[in-house]
Amino acid sequence: MKNKNSVIRLSRYKNALRRLKTMGFARIFSDNLADAIGVTPSQVRKDFSIFGISGNKRGGYQIDELIEHLNNILGKNTIKHAIIVGAGNIGAALAKYDGFEKDGIKIDAVFEADPLKVSSQAVIPVLHADQMIEFIQTNDIRIGIIAVPESSAQQVLDLMVLSGVKGVLNFAPIRLRAPKECVVNNVNLVLELENVIYFSNLLEKEAQEAEINI
Amino acid sequence: MKNKNSVIRLSRYKNALRRLKTMGFARIFSDNLADAIGVTPSQVRKDFSIFGISGNKRGGYQIDELIEHLNNILGKNTIKHAIIVGAGNIGAALAKYDGFEKDGIKIDAVFEADPLKVSSQAVIPVLHADQMIEFIQTNDIRIGIIAVPESSAQQVLDLMVLSGVKGVLNFAPIRLRAPKECVVNNVNLVLELENVIYFSNLLEKEAQEAEINI
Repeated sequence: MKNKNSVIRLSRYKNALRRLKTMGFARIFSDNLADAIGVTPSQVRKDFSIFGISGNKRGGYQIDELIEHLNNILGKNTIKHAIIVGAGNIGAALAKYDGFEKDGIKIDAVFEADPLKVSSQAVIPVLHADQMIEFIQTNDIRIGIIAVPESSAQQVLDLMVLSGVKGVLNFAPIRLRAPKECVVNNVNLVLELENVIYFSNLLEKEAQEAEINI
Repeated sequence: MKNKNSVIRLSRYKNALRRLKTMGFARIFSDNLADAIGVTPSQVRKDFSIFGISGNKRGGYQIDELIEHLNNILGKNTIKHAIIVGAGNIGAALAKYDGFEKDGIKIDAVFEADPLKVSSQAVIPVLHADQMIEFIQTNDIRIGIIAVPESSAQQVLDLMVLSGVKGVLNFAPIRLRAPKECVVNNVNLVLELENVIYFSNLLEKEAQEAEINI
């Protein structure tokens, strides 16, 4: 099944392949890829078969061909245009983040409600939030990143969807309601860190109890 | 079972409760909470029973008590100290991000290898990477955030673990190897966005095919 996790693994394979290529490798076996991203070799073969990628049992996969194939599946051979809404700390950092461009994702503009943060001459222009709908429609933008406070996140999403956005990455710490024709993926930084704290505390407690029991 | 997802849901419940409290609510039922975070009421009751939270079937839960209880479980009633390594776009944004402090997480310092970015007089001091080990040990820091390029992420993690860090949130787009006494949670921004792009493309294709079939 093509689910979120299998797609995430495809991106991981591709990143690993790019590193292996830089190291001079030309061919690769599913076992190598499995090690590189920490799954079983049978998982790699299963993922590849789901997405119609076939290798040669003896010779493995040609890295270049495999990267090309993964890029096609992931839609990476064409540049993807996206916008960011919110020019606060997170939004501004994402606009400058060079990881996106490496993967063919171009941030065309940032939108912000605070007129003091508007800066249309910047490398990535920061435009007033009022201009968002027109920009999305004129430039046929399909991808949006929400980096506004939770109080305005739902409204931003609704406007994006109305304007034609089909996929959203949401950094506001709130569950957003989207129609089924738009995909929303959430990154909640506080939850991620709380999770680390909770499980590291649990590990420490377990270690202390183990000591007491010795 | 206390797994990653159940802990993430606890944090979500708590955020929803905080919003409900602001809106004037004093009591809440599992059905309300289920709606607020988008799970089934039986999931809410299951999560609460796993963590030993009990309510009153007729009267539901008192919001204040529930928040207090969740904070205790999530270790939120004591301030948690953390450091960030890497003062690039992402690291700098995280240092300024106000979402952490609201949840009792305090970023004590940022460490950076580039001397030009060092600024020990900043509100959150940016110190040279060489000082990290001593700082972690002196201040008994248990939580670290990695926001360095992938080429140095593993080395940073190794030094953190050596110094006593027990939980790490990693933003470098690479799989890190950690000993079992340290929890590592990964946030890969590019993967998250690629995922959105992939699934929104899939939805668009399906919609186009559905139109053709009409």
